[in-house]
Parts: sequence; structure tokens; C-alpha cells
Amino acid sequence: MIDLYSIKDPSFIKDLSIKELKELAKEIRIFLIENISKTGGHLSSNLGVVEITIAMYYVFDPEKDKFLFDVGHQSYVHKILTGRAKDFTTLRQYGGLSGYINKSESKYDVWESGHSSTSISAMSGILKSDNSNLRVVSLIGDSSIMNGVALEGLNYLGQTNDKRAIIILNDNKMGISKSVGALSHAFNKLRGTALNRGIKKVLTTILPKRIVHTFHQFKRGIKGFFQQDNIFEDMGFDYYGPYDGHDIKSLIKLLKRIKEAKSPVVLHLQTIKGKGYKPSEEDKKGNFHGVPPFDIETGKPLNKNENKISYSRMVGNFLIEKRKNTDFTVITPAMKEGAKLDGFAELYPNDFIDVGIAEEHAAVMSAGIALSNKNVVLIMYSTFAQRAYDELLNDIARQNLHVIVGIDRAGLVGEDGTTHHGLYDISMFNSMPNFYLAMPKDEQELIGIFNYAFTIKNPIAIRYPRCSDDIASVDYSYTVDNSWDMLRDGENIVIIAYGAKLKYLEKYIKESNKNIGLCNARFIRPMDTNMLDNLFNKYKHIIVVETVIQSGSLYEKILDYKESKQYKSRVYKHLFNDDSIIPHGSLNDLYNHYGFGVDDFNNVIKEVENND
Amino acid sequence: MIDLYSIKDPSFIKDLSIKELKELAKEIRIFLIENISKTGGHLSSNLGVVEITIAMYYVFDPEKDKFLFDVGHQSYVHKILTGRAKDFTTLRQYGGLSGYINKSESKYDVWESGHSSTSISAMSGILKSDNSNLRVVSLIGDSSIMNGVALEGLNYLGQTNDKRAIIILNDNKMGISKSVGALSHAFNKLRGTALNRGIKKVLTTILPKRIVHTFHQFKRGIKGFFQQDNIFEDMGFDYYGPYDGHDIKSLIKLLKRIKEAKSPVVLHLQTIKGKGYKPSEEDKKGNFHGVPPFDIETGKPLNKNENKISYSRMVGNFLIEKRKNTDFTVITPAMKEGAKLDGFAELYPNDFIDVGIAEEHAAVMSAGIALSNKNVVLIMYSTFAQRAYDELLNDIARQNLHVIVGIDRAGLVGEDGTTHHGLYDISMFNSMPNFYLAMPKDEQELIGIFNYAFTIKNPIAIRYPRCSDDIASVDYSYTVDNSWDMLRDGENIVIIAYGAKLKYLEKYIKESNKNIGLCNARFIRPMDTNMLDNLFNKYKHIIVVETVIQSGSLYEKILDYKESKQYKSRVYKHLFNDDSIIPHGSLNDLYNHYGFGVDDFNNVIKEVENND
Repeated sequence: MIDLYSIKDPSFIKDLSIKELKELAKEIRIFLIENISKTGGHLSSNLGVVEITIAMYYVFDPEKDKFLFDVGHQSYVHKILTGRAKDFTTLRQYGGLSGYINKSESKYDVWESGHSSTSISAMSGILKSDNSNLRVVSLIGDSSIMNGVALEGLNYLGQTNDKRAIIILNDNKMGISKSVGALSHAFNKLRGTALNRGIKKVLTTILPKRIVHTFHQFKRGIKGFFQQDNIFEDMGFDYYGPYDGHDIKSLIKLLKRIKEAKSPVVLHLQTIKGKGYKPSEEDKKGNFHGVPPFDIETGKPLNKNENKISYSRMVGNFLIEKRKNTDFTVITPAMKEGAKLDGFAELYPNDFIDVGIAEEHAAVMSAGIALSNKNVVLIMYSTFAQRAYDELLNDIARQNLHVIVGIDRAGLVGEDGTTHHGLYDISMFNSMPNFYLAMPKDEQELIGIFNYAFTIKNPIAIRYPRCSDDIASVDYSYTVDNSWDMLRDGENIVIIAYGAKLKYLEKYIKESNKNIGLCNARFIRPMDTNMLDNLFNKYKHIIVVETVIQSGSLYEKILDYKESKQYKSRVYKHLFNDDSIIPHGSLNDLYNHYGFGVDDFNNVIKEVENND
Repeated sequence: MIDLYSIKDPSFIKDLSIKELKELAKEIRIFLIENISKTGGHLSSNLGVVEITIAMYYVFDPEKDKFLFDVGHQSYVHKILTGRAKDFTTLRQYGGLSGYINKSESKYDVWESGHSSTSISAMSGILKSDNSNLRVVSLIGDSSIMNGVALEGLNYLGQTNDKRAIIILNDNKMGISKSVGALSHAFNKLRGTALNRGIKKVLTTILPKRIVHTFHQFKRGIKGFFQQDNIFEDMGFDYYGPYDGHDIKSLIKLLKRIKEAKSPVVLHLQTIKGKGYKPSEEDKKGNFHGVPPFDIETGKPLNKNENKISYSRMVGNFLIEKRKNTDFTVITPAMKEGAKLDGFAELYPNDFIDVGIAEEHAAVMSAGIALSNKNVVLIMYSTFAQRAYDELLNDIARQNLHVIVGIDRAGLVGEDGTTHHGLYDISMFNSMPNFYLAMPKDEQELIGIFNYAFTIKNPIAIRYPRCSDDIASVDYSYTVDNSWDMLRDGENIVIIAYGAKLKYLEKYIKESNKNIGLCNARFIRPMDTNMLDNLFNKYKHIIVVETVIQSGSLYEKILDYKESKQYKSRVYKHLFNDDSIIPHGSLNDLYNHYGFGVDDFNNVIKEVENND
């Protein structure tokens, strides 16, 4: 019995017997289920890599070799083995353990990613910069390896002949939801027959190394008998697989042999996502990919907010309603479940395309659809839309194609932290020709803006946050125009803001008992210059509140407008500076620590009043 | 004899005999060489696709089917066949024929790209939005197909089973310079033996269709006899090839048969880049990829500016000098020749990596090198850096890794036009945490900033334009700090600018005989706030001159600074608005038409003086 809390560093693993390693795996699974059921977090992906991670630490030298966890949300086992079990009570909380790789937490955390598919390129750089005999191991999922960055990385690394490179393909046939694309079919072919797998197991567990190696060569020689030449071999890798990713004993033998490969290696392991916990094993939809706190017995979330509906879900519902009388296609790069498009996909399978983790392709394909004036809705998280910057700019905006871009998870996202906050989309879209850019104050307005989006010719980005609204019912036919809206008049001071923060500001103003105006700038672009003229004429102080970075923000556009018209009112910014790196934590904690708490607003107002 | 100038639309092709088609090809080649020798333009890539383009128009129906030209610079033959021969005297000139696909020129121009590798994704969208029996044909090069976007597109399209999709892989073993990466090796394998190609030619030219089809199936069945299963077949495509891309008769037979394929098709054609003109056929460096006007006899450029050296070349020279006493790696995504890194690559092959058209991989790999505090210089054109936005932001900037990013072709680029202008990099880098951002006023300062870049810990982007400086000699040890520099004092009015435009402004001020100050803001970020304080205190009018879009520009940062300090001086912008789509033309023409001519500045100054 190993006390996970007593682990200081991973050196203890080398001394364990196979039986003890299996015991360790079992304990880690129990630990993960118990802890994540309390804190929430990434469950399935971590349950799937317990044995792989243990085997990596058993076979390689973590003091010299480097382990890269692609994306990074499957690094919990790695965190436990490197002495961080005690921190799991604070998982993904403000000031607590990160749910991703975080260099400030541990020297064993090498590569911070967050966004998928970078580990192969990062490995290429690490190997290039190091002449020692270290090995670099990347653990990457079957969905992530199909992204353009990963494919570019494979294309580079395969030709280096660098035998220090080891890619472990964690193939759970799932990815974030279900892997899509032609390569997925290719993988299916690779997965081969039960007989084949059985033989391999016998070979790896019973026969001596030399014979297995010969068999491996032989197998490649008589291509097509056990399996065909495959994409990895085409790219110059020595391909091993597929093998069972939960069989610790075989994994160790395999990794030991792979250490002596003469080329870069792809080791293809088949795993069961969510392994060891029935509800997550049986989850085919990805509900246990990232979970809120849940009841271990039933697998159900603990704090179900029956009356609240997320903005994502509202978009999903709207699209279902809208589709009843309007033709359009919905495209998303692997965010079907996350962006709540599952219902639409089920009802309109021919009008829904999940292209997998391929943001660039998703954007260009949307442009291709819009080229012939067909409606298309492209849904992406704000942070992942960054991957498609050039395609949004060059293929959609420059060609002025009417793509409706739904930007989910705009603003702070909370527990996923630094790599996932949606702080850059306004800067992005404000710089692109022809783009409209909007954010609704509530879910009814979300509907209104989406309906409006179908009536224009320009591309438009509609951003909405990762939060819920407790709205009783919405009118799906509601529409808005692109004007701004005074939510309340005031004297001397007006706040301009957009999005769900308006509700907070309205409450703040009411409770602070101040006579402050509040304007809903629901269209960040184009700006409502009539309204702006009114505001500049009426108010001495204009505070622009945004939860994005400053560069390219609405604040900067308002300053430009002020300068062009030579208005006298003073303009104040309340947003994140461009050097902000905002960590993980609950939205509440983050807002309170990063300038959006009640005290912060009190200070701002006091400062403004002092200038009066 | 066909008069190319008499072509109204491509329908005439269907009536030609094979002999006449060959004659047409010959005439087109002569036309291309003669015209491009006068105007400059993309020569080699167009000479390579003469027969392919003719065969496409012969076999398919251009009134219904759609032809996509990936990147688009190999579309000259297509332009001639669709009635634009007469416009070639104005090729790439302001108001003249675009060197790329341009929807406003012709209904046969379907997909504007400019940036490579989007045609497969665009095709996916076009097919998705159309239920007719049209065919969509993409002509894509062997370098472009290895980019992440193209690979994502293949991954999507391969699984659709859409038999209307035809990808013609134009394999000249070259790409922009020389194809790199593992897939390139895979292609080499595919290229196969002379015997194999000989047999194929016999089969396609002599045997009836049914037998060829059977042979094709048979060949796939006994994998490995003639050729192995390959990456395209792995991805679900019906693969045909490689065949000779210059044999019109075979090409026509092949395309006719492919029209009846039951799956998406990849037709792999081998071509000779620059075919039919000796200097371009023999060019292995890519010098004839894009050419200035040249002498047909010798192949030498006509107007060689012996005394001028381009900024790109100066960077190349600097890196060679710097490498003598400092270790670093240079990475570029397929811009070795364009960015003049060939000399460095030759001298330091182990410290130079051209990763092919893989901007995302290049950026992440640079981060991987910087991770262990090794020096790395990443060189990209401004417009292509857009492809790596997320990686520059999330992998380099967020992790605060010391990557020196050289941004070549910053600002207007001239003849390549709308898709190639470097107008967005300042907006990009100003939004990213930790990034420094600089642009030198001349080549000596370029050296100074590069030297400075090696002394800091932050990532830094150094942008430089597509133009030349006539500098006699430079001091390679020269260095600068990140302060701003007053080039001349004035009264009332000061201009803040950066880059090579300063020389123009200095001359303008001198010649206009006005007492205007001029400040070199060589570091756009961080701003020199001491200098800004001085300028705001001394001058009533501050004009910020930039040749980039407004959003995220230095102008907006100066406004923000003014507002925070409540300075009174008026700030004027002189830059491109965010909806600008700037076409092709000489730099001179573009500046004159887009607000940077002498008259424009006279008007600005007059307006400012009126406000005095």
C-alpha cells in the first residue's frame, strides 16, 4: 500500500514490483475519482492514462528525460507521481493546483500547452536545442494528433531520424467527444483484429526481446499480413502498435524496447477513456471529459442548477428553432458537446459538421459554404478561435463572406485558467475588415443578435460567456438592430459595457445608490456613434468596462472617436492590461482578484468623483 | 495558330485536336515568358502548369465545375484561357491584372487565397453547399499540401466519400524553394520507378478505360508490387499517380477517367517547375518563382540596383556575422530564399531549419528551443505570421520565451497585393503579453535592434519592410536601447513614426520647408514614455504616421497614454482604417493612392495648422 500523499518525487517507482505498480494504479484511480468528485476537473482523460504514466516513470529517467503532455489536462497522474497529491483538494481553484501543466508548480512540468497538438513541435525544438542523450516523450491523444499543428510537427520530426523522440499515441477512439476525419478511419484500420492484438500480447509478454524485434521487422516486411504500411511509417517513424494501454507489464517491456529504437517512434496504445469508473467508461458523449463535482454513486452532478440555462445551451436551442424555417449549416471544430450543439446535431445531422480539432479547416470550410451565399454558423471557443486567426482574416473577412461566428467562452472562463481565457477575440475581430462584433447582455438579447446576424451580408462574430442565465423563457423570434441601449440614465458619470457584466454593473449601481448611467454597447463594432455623441455631450466621465485585454478593445475605439470629435469628457478604462496572465480559479475569485470586485468599482468611482 | 488575345471564354478549347492543344501550350509558354520578362511576376509555377490547366479546361465544364488554384500565383494560364491575355501588360500593376485569383476580374475566379493550402477546405465547403453534380478541382503544389490547413482539409474531405472532389497534386519537388519534411520523402517513394511510369503511360494512352481501371484496382490489391499503400489512400482518397504532368494526351485521358471515380481523388502529377525556359528549368533555388523584369536571353534581372541592399538581405548578412560569436538557431517556414537566409543556411546548415510551409510548427518549435534558454531567431513574412497567431501568443508570449521574431515584408508589399500586405502584425504583437515590438528607421538601426534583441529576456518582434536601402556599409556591432529618438525638432507640430517611412517624412519636412518635429518611435512596444511626456509638453499637435491598420496601432497606444495623463495636445492618425483592402501595385502607386503621397501630407499639415 503506497501512501500517495507521501510521494516526494517519482524515484520510488523504480523500486516497485509489477504487482505493486498495479496496486499503485488502482490507488491512483480511487484517488482521482474521489478527489475530482469533490473539486470537479478532467476525469476521463486521466483515468485513461494511469498505467501509461506509471510506465513512463518506471522506464524513463524523469531527472533527465522530458515528458510532454499534449493539451495537458491528462497530467493529473503525472502530478500525483511528482509529489502533488496533497494539492488536489485545491484543484483548479484560485491559488490552487492547476488542471494543466504549470512550470511554476514543479520542475517536472516541462511544456505548458493548454491548446492541443503542440507537443510534437515543442519536442522538435527541445531535441534541437539539446545534444545530450535525453529522451523526449510526448503523450498525445488521437484527436489532438489530427490537428494541423501536430501534422506539421510529425512531418518535421519524422525526417530528423532523431531516435530520442518518442510519441505515445493515446488512442481512446474518443478525443474530446468522438474523433472525426479520415485519419480516424485509418486508425481503425490500424486497430486491427483481436487475434492480432492477442498475438502481440503474447509476443511482448513472453518472448525475448530479440524475437519481438524480429517479428516487428518481419511484420513491416510482409506488409498487409498483420497490418499495412501506415501514415506514421510513411512519415518516417518507427510504428509500434496498437497495444493495450492498460497492461502495465507489457507497457514496461514495450517502452524498454522502444528506448533502443533507431528512429523516432510512434507507440500506438489503445485505452479506455474513463477506465475504472463505470459512469465515465460508459460515457460516449464526453460528459465525463470535464466534470463539475459529482456524486460517485450515481455519477450525477451535485449542484444542478435546474433553473439556469447556459449561454451555450441557449445558442444550441436557438439554432434548433431557427433551423425550422431557415437553411444553414453549423460547423464546429470539436466543440459539439462543449458548445451544446448535440441536440442540433441529432436533429439535423446533414446540417451539422464537427470537423474535429481543426479550427483552421473549420474557418476556411465555412468560407467555402458562404461563397455561394449559403448560411453558415461557425461555433468556436474564443481561445481556440485564435488558431484560425489567419483564416478568419484572410478567407472570411477579406473576402467579406457572410459567416456567422459564434464565439463561446468569451471573457474569463474560470477553472481552465491561463491558456483558456477568452481575452483576445475582440482585439482579433476589431482588426479584421468587414467584421461585425457583438455581445449580448442576456440570453434574450443573444437570440436577438443571432436573428439580426442572419439578416446582414457581412461576417459577424457573436461572443457569449461561459455562464448561465436564469431566464424563464425566451422569444426565439426576437431581434435587435445594431444600436446601443441606455439601461439607465445618470448624472456626470456613465459606464459603457457589454455582455453579462451589465447585469452585475446594474446591480452594483443600484446597490451603491449612485446616480450613474449605464449603456449597453451590444455591438462593439460598428459602434453606435449617435449614442456616443449623446454620451459625450451629456456626461463628463465615461468609464468603459470590458473583460478583455486593452489592445484593440472598445475603449481604444472610443478614445479614437473622442479624439476625432474633440470631445472633452474624460474616458476611463477598466479592463485587463496587455501583459495580463490570468490564472485559474472560480469566476468569482478571478473577478475579485483581477479588478472586478465591488471594492474595485468603488475605487474607480471614487477616483472619477475626485476628478469631478 | 490560336490568337491568345482573341480568347473570350474557355469554350474554344473543346474543339481543338490534341495537336492543336500542344500548339496552344507552346504559345502560352512563349506568351508567359515574353510578358513576365517585361512586367515581372510568377514565372516558374505558371510554366509548370500549362498542360494541366489546358487539360482541366478540356475535360471539365468551366461553366458548371469549379477550379480552385491553391495560393493562386499559378493561375496565369487559367487567366489566359478565360480571356485575359490582353491584360497581362498590366500584370501586378496598380489597377491592372492581379497576380492572384481575383473574383472581381472574372466569373471563373472562384476562390481568392493568396495564403497557401486553403483550397481543400474551401472545396469541402463548396461541395457541402451544393447538391448539383458539379465537380470541384483543386490544383495544389507539393509544398502547400504539407501545411497544417491542407492536412486538416484532407483529413476532412477524405472521409466524405464525395466523388465530386478532385485534388490535383502538382508535384515539382520544389514548392517555393525545396519541399521539406517527412511527407516529401513519402512523395519520393510514390514517385516510383521509371519502369512503373513507363507502364502507366502505356496503360493510359493505349489501353481502353476498363482495363486501366482494372489495373488500378489490381495495383491497389497487390499492395507493394508497383507501389505501396500511401498517405492519401490512408485518408480515404482514390490515388492516381504519379503521372507526367506535361503530357497533354495522357492528362486528358486520365482526367476523363477520374471524372468517373467513386471516391474523392488525388491525382499526383509530376511537373518541371519553370518548364520550357532554360534558366527557370535549371533554377533550383527558386529565383524564378517570383521574378522582376528580366532579359530573356540571359535570364538576368533588367534593373539591378547594384548599390542597394534589401532589408531582408541585411538581416541575412547580420545573422551570418552574429553567428561568428553567438550561438543561435534560425528557423523559417519556407522563406529561406525570400527572406535571404540562403547564405546563412549554407554556412551554418546545422543551425538553420526550413520547416516548409508550416508557420505554426515553426513558432512552436522556436518556443521549444527557447525553453532551455537557447537563442532562436524565427523569420517569417508579416502576412504569413498571421498563420501562427495562436502559437506566437500562447506558446511564445504567454510563456515569456525569448524568441527573436524577424517580421519580413512588414507594411505594404506592393505587387503581391491584398492577401500579402503586412498590415496586421503590430495589432497582433501589441495584444500579446511580454512581447517587445520594434521597427528600424534604416539598416544600421536594424542591426542595432537585432543586437539589442539578443540582450533581453522577453520575446521580441522586429519588423522590416520589403524595400532596399542604399547604405554604404554597416557596423555589425552597433546596438541601440529601446528609447525613441528625435530626428528633428520643430514647433507646434511633431510627427511620430517608425520604420523606413521616416526617411520619406524627413525629406518631406525638409522640402516643404516647415518647422515640424520628427520622432523615431523605433520601439512600438514598450513606448518611450519619457519622450512622450516631452512631446506632449512641447507640441500642440502630434501626428502619428503608420502604414498598418488602426486597431492595436501605436496611435491607439498614444491616445491611451494621453488620456491617462490628461495631456491637451491634439493627436492625429495617419494610417489605414480597419476596413482597408489594399490592392496590388507598385509601392509608389499604392502610397500615392492610399494616403501617403506628398499631397496627402500637405492636406494633413494644412488641416493641423487650421486647428492651430
